This record gives sequence, structure tokens and C-alpha cells, in this order.
Amino acid sequence: MEEEDSADPYLPYDGGGDAIPLQELSGRGPNYAMSNGGGGAGASISTHLLDLLEEPIPGVGTYDDFHTIDWVREKCKDRERHRKAKRQHSRRIAHNFSDSRDTWSLWQGIQTITDYKPPPMTSLAGVIDIAADWLNDLKEGVCLSAMWFNHEQCCWDSNETTFAERDKCPQWKTWAELILGQAEGPGSYIMNYFMFTFWALSFAFLAVSLVKVFAPYACGSGIPEIKTILSGFIIRGYLGKWTLMIKTITLVLAVASGLSLGKEGPLVHVACCCGNIFSYLFPKYSKNEAKKREVLSAASAAGVSVAFGAPIGGVLFSLEEVSYYFPLKTLWRSFFAALVAAFVLRSINPFGNSRLVLFYVEYHTPWYLFELFPFILLGVFGGLWGAFFIRANIAWCRRRKSTRFGKYPVLEVITVAAITAIVAFPNPYTRQNTSELIKELFTDCGPLESSQLCQYRSQMNGSQAYPAGSDAAAAPGVYSAMWQLSLALVFKIIMTIFTFGLKVPSGLFIPSMAIGAIAGRIVGIAVEQLAYYHHDWFLFREWCEVGADCITPGLYAMVGAAACLGGVTRMTVSLVVIVFELTGGLEYIVPLMAAVMTSKWVGDAFGREGIYEAHIRLNGSPSLDAKEEFPHPTLAREVMRPRGNDPPLAVLTQDDMTLAELQSIISQTSCNGFPVIVSKESQRLVGFALRRDITIAIENARRKQEGIMLNSRVYFTQHAPTLPADSPRPLKLRSILDMSPFTVTDHTPMEIVVDIFRKLGLRQCLVTHNGRLLGIITKKDILRHMAQMANQDPESIMFN
Amino acid sequence: MEEEDSADPYLPYDGGGDAIPLQELSGRGPNYAMSNGGGGAGASISTHLLDLLEEPIPGVGTYDDFHTIDWVREKCKDRERHRKAKRQHSRRIAHNFSDSRDTWSLWQGIQTITDYKPPPMTSLAGVIDIAADWLNDLKEGVCLSAMWFNHEQCCWDSNETTFAERDKCPQWKTWAELILGQAEGPGSYIMNYFMFTFWALSFAFLAVSLVKVFAPYACGSGIPEIKTILSGFIIRGYLGKWTLMIKTITLVLAVASGLSLGKEGPLVHVACCCGNIFSYLFPKYSKNEAKKREVLSAASAAGVSVAFGAPIGGVLFSLEEVSYYFPLKTLWRSFFAALVAAFVLRSINPFGNSRLVLFYVEYHTPWYLFELFPFILLGVFGGLWGAFFIRANIAWCRRRKSTRFGKYPVLEVITVAAITAIVAFPNPYTRQNTSELIKELFTDCGPLESSQLCQYRSQMNGSQAYPAGSDAAAAPGVYSAMWQLSLALVFKIIMTIFTFGLKVPSGLFIPSMAIGAIAGRIVGIAVEQLAYYHHDWFLFREWCEVGADCITPGLYAMVGAAACLGGVTRMTVSLVVIVFELTGGLEYIVPLMAAVMTSKWVGDAFGREGIYEAHIRLNGSPSLDAKEEFPHPTLAREVMRPRGNDPPLAVLTQDDMTLAELQSIISQTSCNGFPVIVSKESQRLVGFALRRDITIAIENARRKQEGIMLNSRVYFTQHAPTLPADSPRPLKLRSILDMSPFTVTDHTPMEIVVDIFRKLGLRQCLVTHNGRLLGIITKKDILRHMAQMANQDPESIMFN
Repeated sequence: MEEEDSADPYLPYDGGGDAIPLQELSGRGPNYAMSNGGGGAGASISTHLLDLLEEPIPGVGTYDDFHTIDWVREKCKDRERHRKAKRQHSRRIAHNFSDSRDTWSLWQGIQTITDYKPPPMTSLAGVIDIAADWLNDLKEGVCLSAMWFNHEQCCWDSNETTFAERDKCPQWKTWAELILGQAEGPGSYIMNYFMFTFWALSFAFLAVSLVKVFAPYACGSGIPEIKTILSGFIIRGYLGKWTLMIKTITLVLAVASGLSLGKEGPLVHVACCCGNIFSYLFPKYSKNEAKKREVLSAASAAGVSVAFGAPIGGVLFSLEEVSYYFPLKTLWRSFFAALVAAFVLRSINPFGNSRLVLFYVEYHTPWYLFELFPFILLGVFGGLWGAFFIRANIAWCRRRKSTRFGKYPVLEVITVAAITAIVAFPNPYTRQNTSELIKELFTDCGPLESSQLCQYRSQMNGSQAYPAGSDAAAAPGVYSAMWQLSLALVFKIIMTIFTFGLKVPSGLFIPSMAIGAIAGRIVGIAVEQLAYYHHDWFLFREWCEVGADCITPGLYAMVGAAACLGGVTRMTVSLVVIVFELTGGLEYIVPLMAAVMTSKWVGDAFGREGIYEAHIRLNGSPSLDAKEEFPHPTLAREVMRPRGNDPPLAVLTQDDMTLAELQSIISQTSCNGFPVIVSKESQRLVGFALRRDITIAIENARRKQEGIMLNSRVYFTQHAPTLPADSPRPLKLRSILDMSPFTVTDHTPMEIVVDIFRKLGLRQCLVTHNGRLLGIITKKDILRHMAQMANQDPESIMFN
Repeated sequence: MEEEDSADPYLPYDGGGDAIPLQELSGRGPNYAMSNGGGGAGASISTHLLDLLEEPIPGVGTYDDFHTIDWVREKCKDRERHRKAKRQHSRRIAHNFSDSRDTWSLWQGIQTITDYKPPPMTSLAGVIDIAADWLNDLKEGVCLSAMWFNHEQCCWDSNETTFAERDKCPQWKTWAELILGQAEGPGSYIMNYFMFTFWALSFAFLAVSLVKVFAPYACGSGIPEIKTILSGFIIRGYLGKWTLMIKTITLVLAVASGLSLGKEGPLVHVACCCGNIFSYLFPKYSKNEAKKREVLSAASAAGVSVAFGAPIGGVLFSLEEVSYYFPLKTLWRSFFAALVAAFVLRSINPFGNSRLVLFYVEYHTPWYLFELFPFILLGVFGGLWGAFFIRANIAWCRRRKSTRFGKYPVLEVITVAAITAIVAFPNPYTRQNTSELIKELFTDCGPLESSQLCQYRSQMNGSQAYPAGSDAAAAPGVYSAMWQLSLALVFKIIMTIFTFGLKVPSGLFIPSMAIGAIAGRIVGIAVEQLAYYHHDWFLFREWCEVGADCITPGLYAMVGAAACLGGVTRMTVSLVVIVFELTGGLEYIVPLMAAVMTSKWVGDAFGREGIYEAHIRLNGSPSLDAKEEFPHPTLAREVMRPRGNDPPLAVLTQDDMTLAELQSIISQTSCNGFPVIVSKESQRLVGFALRRDITIAIENARRKQEGIMLNSRVYFTQHAPTLPADSPRPLKLRSILDMSPFTVTDHTPMEIVVDIFRKLGLRQCLVTHNGRLLGIITKKDILRHMAQMANQDPESIMFN
């Protein structure tokens, strides 16, 4: 006979082998639900939750920094809050509507709409766009008529220039003109060169200093950390107002400094900061870590929506790439946020073309089946580039992290900025703003294009007839552009590897797209010339007549950009949709799809992680990727701890420990929680208590209750155990006990355990065998086991 | 001391109160994992799975018709298959690639792409389109030059008619012309009327007879059943080849018969049939119910993609409305399937306009903020219509189900078809094909529109200048069109209620959209006239100048269509995206969004279920909706069975039952599975065995093993219990024992339990208290409890 549970007269199967104990239990029916613990404790239907409400201990249920949240608990808390609010609401408002629940849901719907306010974030994005443009042009010169105009705005109103020479106007002075008084000649070139480098270095220095002094979290793209946070990790201050302010300012500076980085990734971080700060206005979101993450998912969708002007792509990006827990409710909230963001952006009109999107292009020629071959080649290039970039960048970042070299971030940024500026200036394709470069590469050659890339012989002859490429033989301008583009490609590839990870805000979208666009344009021009000179080949004979405009090099650039971005991030659907929204035509989805998928497969062949997952692993955050499958046939008992020569699992018993014993267990171990069992003999599980909650509860009891001493008995049961007469007042800790811990049996395959952890967002899970507690599996155990199974050293995984 | 587990010398904590049993256990480390059951059973790492492999019993692991699948088990089976295939694959192919796993994944990627073959499905859709058009026109007349041409094709090549009169050509003869020889006059009108009704009745009769005789599952829209199947229910034959064939044929007939139904919903069913039949070519999909459902999710996306020409909308429809388990992998597979489907459809070009979409429209005027007010009004109308339709249709369907009246489906269809045809013929807006009506209502009035709806005074004056609506005063044609449209609206509303649920294939998308489009167009024309006659009102003064073309009635029709469809189905994002893909402009997303959301909220205020969920509940399938939250604070022990005066839970013990006892338990109970416990005294849970598997295993043992008698001992442990010398040969059933059943404690809030059921796709879950088995919760228990909590009679839920 077991002797546990003696305080509970109603507990089933306590006696010997009586015939049908289950009937006995069920015969008591609902009464059983009320009387657990005997003695008429009253109507405690939801013991755990009501206990929490009865004696709320401040701080219980919150998390430490760099800890993982418990999704299940957070969601329960939210539903409890919801029920309470509803009760109050139904008391307050007299409803003549059909059903109070429905009114509530309607009211709530309107409320949630007003909760997600993207406009401030969008305005910020508009300001960033405009400021970055202005600073960028400041490197070349200044507008005399109005200092705050960038080059384009400066020359916009000028009626002294023709359309073809719209970049040159008397109001706009280069630094050489301003200082030396002359526009041409080696002296002025050197002057411009010097001022370009000088401004680039100043911006870079300012950016890195601001980040270092005020907000260290403002560096990088932020997407890996946001993924970690969304998967349920706590990083305090990462989405705070300081990060927001400094990131906004330094993002402008970093983009203007000419470093090989973009502003799209950081914009997602900025959007999440806005979402987080706004969520503080609504206790519903700020007090609940799970609800807060729903807002952040929507905010990241709004961020991408603003960055690219692609609302649907933004939602899919949030769904595919960033989010961890994405209920359907979040889907349409994200959609709404993304939409409003896109529209506010259009009303600000930072691109000056009244278009929603960053690179709006329209092509006039269809694509032909044969062209799939170069598109797939571009996909292969994108995959190779992605794999190479991830390996090289991670190796470099690991070096930065592990050696002394990482201690001088300012010096590093200055060095990279100096090299970038010095090498970039002579080449027109690297000197200009990267987004402008991409736009130029995407654009089809029309009669009004003054770009060197469009110097076909037809244009040289002075024929301005449309289509311009009709006589598609390349003129010398195209050949020199090809050379410059090739050099720019090599330069971008090298600099991007060293730039991503610097201590300034740095996005990866634009540099990756630039590399792909350059490669794509080169391939596109090559195919075009091939088709022109060999139009009698059987490949071209069918569809490419002499003089016809059959190849669109701009389309190749776009496909290449998508392929390279896909290789780096391993996105598929969201990437295709983003690019599809850029062009607005369903026509080109098949080429894009082919290239993006090829790129993903080629990239996956060298390693399944995208750059963001690789950086998450480098950061050492315990994040379980929702995408990768767990392919090994191990069982829970092989992963659980204690194992081998480990010390035994630290457990608490439900009613026979003293406060001193409890405290010694807490101080001797470092784990975050302890299983509570009936007794050491039976090892039957009662519940789970978190270390933080126990500490807070003991502190609280010491402050508020008298007579709590070191030899006070601690109990987790409903009623105090019978104690000797002279013993001190016992301490009841039932309110912090989680009476519904997740358990699996030791025979459960790990693939199921991993699935449970992912889908329910658990922190830990207890392992039982035939009803007895055997061990515990935490998220970190799973990550270590996965590393071990992938033949990596499990100790190599650093956890924060 | 407990006496159980005596056959297992290594079982932990078997003895008395020794100090630290966990250390003892963990000291044995991996050895423990190998030796469960003692006696050197060898390296049985994954006991459950390997046992299954060692002695595969045919039939174990399959499901009965109208049963729910176990997602976790299916996914485990698939991973096991995957591992086996990989082992074979790595033996077979010498790989010089970086890593065999990566090669595999690449190979697999290509394989999965070829798995989803939408072309056959798309061709089918094209054929349906063309055939339905032809049959529909057959009701009016026949093409003399080529019988198989429909009206449009017949007159296409005719050069005897002007563009404005393109509908009239000598080759096309109405029935009156053909039979009576005269085109005008009351006689020919009556003749045409008669032939119209005659053909409609013939088509309807043929359709319902085919459905009744050959494939009863081919009726209805199919989406509720597909949702049920995707949520893990087995309905054999629902997606079979007979259903496919009959549904395709009868769909054409039903559409042509002029009944108020559409072909879009049934196309999703047809697509899923295709997906299911194709999956039989690949054992990977046909043998695994979970994998099969991934194919079906992709197929339903392809179905919507084909129906509307909206690939992204199709994917989102599959995600938001249909699918239950939607991993990211399925996302891009669906996307791929939807894309290819859309492109194959375009190459077939059934709409003859080389557009992908069914209703392609382009509007030229922007919308103004004030117009949001009528758009929201349309949303309210859509929500009211949706709520009314759902209630009325469900009431009618319930009546059909419960009274004698449902026994005459053919008569019902004929009656409805006759009423429809007779009432529809006089009104041109109900006589024509519903999709053409929608197209006409969506289209903006241009100079080439000959429609009655576009008879503005400007056109009457002979001015053909664009925009046509410049002098937007309505001419009498518009007023009579308004009357006819109002009558058509009432007619459609009434007929759709009685039509949806008839025993013919019937979709709801097109009728709902038609109702919304009619209402929208009426509102649009009203606002237009208001703005014309009162252009000095402060509302219009700002933006609507005299003579300007400021209101687009077609846009109102589109917004109304989206609102009504949203009210009926309660879709949000996917609906907006589908309509957005129809127009191709981001411009009008805000009006659509406003209307669709208003419609959803208004509809939700009268009942949260969409029409598909309502029909699922009417059908009595145990489907847990993934969307609705469980808002009640009940605990698992209040829901589990046994409860109250129930008989005790039927349990099996692991090693002390005879075959006769086991069989008597099976025959006395009707539950689908039994928990296996250590002993009646301890009630500690070992595992779970399914009724079907036990029955199959006993049959199998009787056939193959000798010496199995009624008093044979049945055991679920690794090794046989020690038996008296003269006892018959025992029967080992460990291979069918699920050693990792899901358990929750009795204190677990039901919201968590519901969450676990939904996310992991469980069939049942065992309830324990302090390590002892208390009861069981099945999916049906949860559904009954939810009904009870919603103040419905739990017995009113019928289960199949």
C-alpha cells in the first residue's frame, strides 16, 4: 500500500484491489470536481487559475531576460483576461443585440483594427527614404537653391535643361565646383573623390558611434533577433524606444555612407519597434507575451509592405520567414496592417512616382520557353552565391565574435567604409545608390533611356523609334558597361560578406538583389547579343526574327535578383509574390518561380540554413525552427535528462519538504523549474513549479506572512499536511504550481516530441514511464540532441 | 508494495523507499534504453516502430470508413517510410555530392514537383467551361454553321454584323426561327420560352438522375466535405474516379440548366478528386492519410486558381478556408500547383480573352473617401444576406433531411429547375448565364458598351466620346434596367436558398457574387445619379465636378459581390486577394477590405459559422474547427469520460488477461480504443490499443499461430508473463500497442486540451491524476462539450 495522498480522502484507487474503482470515482460525478482535497474547499472549479486570482503574487508569471516564454501559459492568461473583461463588459453595457457574445466580438473586432496603427511606422519609413536620398547626394554635391533638396528635386524645377540632361542643372553644384570652382579636370575629380570618401567616412563613423553609445541592439538587420523573439524568447530592450530612435537615425547614415547594405531588413526591425511601443498603450498586448508576438507578426508584415510596397508579399513574408505562431486571426490583421502601411506610404510618396513599389517596371515582350534555360542558370548562380555568402559571412562573424578583433567595432566600420568608398567611386555602377542601380538594371531600354546600358547601335544612329532595341547590336557603351558591371559584381560580392554583421544597421535584401540584378543583366545582354548575331540558330529561329525585340535584359536582372535573394534567405513563395507585386504582371511568375526554386535547391544542397537561421545559431538563441523536420528515430528517453552519470533530477515533493530543503535545492541547481511529485517512493507526478515563481513566492511570504521560518513545512497540496503541534506555520505554494504539466512517455519518438514543442511552444516536457516520473526534456536538450544527430559537437552550441 | 511489472527486472523504483532512485536509473544510462523487458532483447531502440516492422500485420494502421485519422501516427509512419527509403537510396546510389541527405532532399524536391500534376485537372476545367457555355446557349438556339459552336463563337467569324450588333448573326438561329421560321412576335416568344424551359428541365433531370444512379457523393458543392476530409476524416469514395466523372458531367448539365448555382465550388471538389486519383500513382501519398491530405490541400488551391484564375488567392483560400494541417511545405507546393494550373488554363483559353481571370475589369477613375460610406453599406447588406441565407438554407436542408420530402430528390430538382426557368426567362438579367451577368455588372460603361445598363443620356445623344458617362444622367434604359435588376435580386435570393443543397453539383460562389453584384450596381447607379443631380452638395462638391466621371457603378458591383460572398463564407483575406487578382489593381483593395470586413462582422453578429461550417455540422461530421476559440474555463476532468453514472472505463491490463476476457471487453463496448494499464490496482498507464488493430491482430494470430485458444493469456509487455506449465500458448500484442499515448492531467484547462487536439490532430487523449489513469477524452467528447457550453443540446449533434 502506498502511503501518499493521505490528506486527500477522495483520491481514487487509494485502497487495495477493490473491484471497479473507476465506477466509484465516476459515481461521485461533479462532486469530485469540487472536493479535491476534501473538507469542503468550496467551488474551486478551476483550481489553478482561481488560486492565482485569489492570492496574486506580484511578479509571478513574468519572465527573466533571455528566457523562453511558455506559449500555453500565456494563451491561457489571455483567455482568462478575456473572460474577465467580458464579464465586466456584460455587467456594464446593456445590450439589446441578439447575444452579448456577438456584440463583444464585434466590438473587439473594431478595437483590434484600431490597435494596429501602422501610420507612424510608415511616416518613419518615408522620412528614412527621403533623408537617405538627401544624405547620399550630399556626398556628391549640394543644391544651392535649397540645401535640403536632393539632386533630383534640385533639378526637377529647372527649366534650363533638356530631359536627356535632366541630371545636370546649374543649381546643383558638385563639391569640386563649389570649392575649386571648376567642374572638369583631374583636380576636380580628385576633389570630388576626396569629398565622397570624406562624407562616407563621416556618416559611417557617426552611425557606428551612435549605435555603440546609445543602443547596441540597433545594429545588424534585426530579422534573426525578431525571429528569435517571435519564437518566444525574451530580449528586453531589443524593441524599445531607444533602439527605434537610434536605428532610424543610424539607418539613414549607414545607407548614405555607401556601405554595401540596404534598409529593408532594418525597416522590419523599426516596424516591430513601433508595434512593440504601440502595444504598450494596450494592456491586453503589453501584459501578455503571446499577444504581443501577434502584434509583432503583423508589424513585420507592415515593415516589408512599406519597404517594398508589397502588402501581400509582406504578409507572406511574415508567415513564411519570420513568424512562429501564426493563427488565422493574425493573418488578416497582418494583411490589414500591411495594406494600411502601403497606402499611407503611397500618400507620402517618397519615390516621387506615385507608385506603391520601390522598383516599378513594365515589360512589353513576353518570355519564351527557351529562356527558362538562362533563368535556371541564374537560379543556380543565386543558390551558389547564397551558399557561399552564408558560409563566408558566418565564418567572418564567428571570427569577429571569438577573437580580439571584435572589440574595435568603430575601427572595423571605418575601415570597411573607407575601402568601400575608395573602390566604389571610380565605377559609376558602384558609386550610385544601390537601389537606383537595381532600378536601372531592371528597366527595359526605352527611347528615353540615357543610360550607358542602353547604347545600342540603333540609338547611336539617332533613330529614336520605339522599341529602342530593334537594332539590338550592342554599341561600345554596352561593352564598357558590361566590364564595369562585372567589376561591380565582384566588388559587391566581397564587400557584402564583410559588411553584413557590422555594428551598424545593415540589411541584406538590397545588396543581394543588386548582385543578382548585375549578374542577370550581364546574362541578359549576352543572350540578347547571341540572339542578335545568331538569329538563325534553331533555338532562336522560331521566335526571334531579325530586328525583333525578343529578349528583355531587364527581366533577366529581375530574375537574377530574385534568385540571389532566394539563395541567401531561402524564401520561396513570399519572394515570388513580392517580386510579382513589383512588376504587377502574372506573366513573369513562371520564370521567377523557376529561378527561385532552383536557387533554393542548389542552396539547400550546401546546407539547409538560410542566413537568418545561421545568424540565430551564431547568436546562440534557443530557437526551434518550425520548418526543418526532425528525421531521426530516437526516443524521448534517449534525450531526456538525467542521463548517464548526471546527478539525479531535482524534484520537490508535494508535502514533506521544509523551506530550508527547498532553498538548498534551488541554490544547488540551476534549472528553471522543478517537477513536484507525490513522494520519493512513488515518483508519481503532481505538477511543475518554476524556479522564478518559487523564489518570488518565498520572498513574498517572508515579507507578508509571519512565522515563516527555515523549518517551515512547504506544501503544494490543497490542504496543509498534519504537522506536529510545535512546528512553525507551513507555507502553501499551491498557487504557483502548474497542475497541468505536459508529459510524454519515455517511448515517445522524438519526432513527436519535437512536433509538440514546436506546435504548442513548450519550454519543457516531463517524461514518464508507466505513470512514474523519469526525467525532463527542455528546449535546449532538444537543440543539443539535434546538433548531436547532425554530427555536430553539442557543446559547440552556445546558449545566451 | 505494488506487485505489478514483476516481469521487468530493470524497471525503476520497483522497490521500497530507497534514497535516490533516479540516480540509480540514470547510472544505467543507455543500457536502460536497450534492456526494457530484460533478458537481452537486443537493440530495440524504437520498440514500437521496430516491432511494427518486425511482424507487420496486414491491415494494422488503416482506418474504417467514417472514422478519424490519427495525424501523429500518420506523420510518424511517413517519417519511418522516408528513413527506410533513404537508407535504400543511400545504398543504391553512389553519391559524390557533398552529403547524401542533401542530394536526397534535392531529388525529393524534384519528385514532389512532378507529383502535383495540375494539367489534367485544368484541362477538365477548360472542358467544363466550354461545354457549359455551349449547353447554356443551346437553350436559346443553335449554330447552323457548326453545331458545336456556342453563340459567341458562332457569330465570331461572321463579318456580316457590326461590332455593336455582334450578338446577332445569320448563322445563329433561335429555336423559334428554326421551328416556326419567324424571329419576332408572340408566337416565337412563346416557342423560345417553351424550348428554354424544356432544355432546362432536361438538363436538370439528366443531372440529378446521373448523380442519383452513379455517384451520390457528386452532389452539392463538396467544400464542406473536403474540409471534413482535410481535418482528418475518412469518407471512402468521396474523391474517387466515379465521383470525378459524374461530377464533371453533371456540373456542366447543372450549370446549363440555369439553376441558381455556380461551378466554382464543385471545381474545387473536382480538383481534389484529381489530386486524390493522382496520389494513387505514388505509394508515398496513397498509403499515408496525412500525406494525402497535403496533396488535397494543394489540389484545392489549384481548384480555386482554375476557377477564378487567381493563383495567390487560391493558395490563401486553401490556407484560410479549407485546410486543417497546413505546413509551410504545403504552402509552396500549393502555390506551385495553383500557378501551373492557372497557366495551363490560360493556354486552353476558355474565356477567349487570353486573360487568366474570369471577370477581368479595368477601372479608370479612382475612388474617393466619401464612397467608403456606400461601400460599408454594401458590406452590411452582404453580412445580412449571408446570415439570412445561412439560417434559411440550413433550416430548409434540415427539413429535407428530417422529413419524407427528402426522399424525392429528382422531383425536387425538377420542380426547382422548372420554377427557375419559368420565372427567369422573361427577365433578361436572370435569363442569361450568371457569370455573364456578373461580368456585365462589373464592367464600367465604355463607349462600346451596348448594354441597357449603359444607356446614359450622353449616349442617347449620339455622343460617343470617352468617357461615356460624362453626361451621366440616366436614360430610360437605365431605369428599366434598375427595375429588372431589383426583380432579379429578389429572384436570385429566393432561388439560391432552395437550390444550394439540391442533389446536383451546386456551387455558391457565383450566385452569392451575383446577388452582391446586382445590389452593388443598383447602389452604384443610385449614388451616380445622386452625384449628378446634386453635384453642389458639400459631399460631392470637392471632387465631383459637373460632367466629370466620378462614380464607377461597376466598382460598386464588385464590392457588393465581395461583400455578399464574404457574408456567406466568412472568408476575408483570400476573398480580397481573389477579387484583387481579378482586377489586378492594388487601388481598390481598401474599398474591398472595408466591405468584406463589415460583412464579416455583421454576419458574425448573427452567428459565427460560415455556410460551410454550418453544413459540416448538419452533416454530423466530427470536425474541430481550427478557427473558433474555446472560451470556457472548464477543466479536463469535467469533460472526460466516464462521468456521472457512466459505466467504468474499459481498460486492458498489460499481462493478466485471457483472450476470452479481451474479446468480451471488445464485444461489450463500442469505443474505438482501450487504454492498457499496469494492473487494476495501480491504474498506471502503459499505452493505448485501437479496437480495429486488436481485432485484426487476433484474427491474424488465429490464422497463423497455432495453439491460440480462448484461455490463452494476452500480454502487451516485451516478454511473456510466467505462466503455469499447462497453460496454452500466450498471445503477444505489443506490436499493436501505442506506447506513447497522449496524456493530460485532470486539472488541465479544456482550452489547452482543445488546442492540443487541434494542433496535433489527435483522436483521443487520456486523462491522469497524479500518474494514475482517470478517463479518456475523445474528439466527439470535445464537440459535445462545446455544444453544451454553447447552450445547445449535446444530443442534437448527430455523428455519422
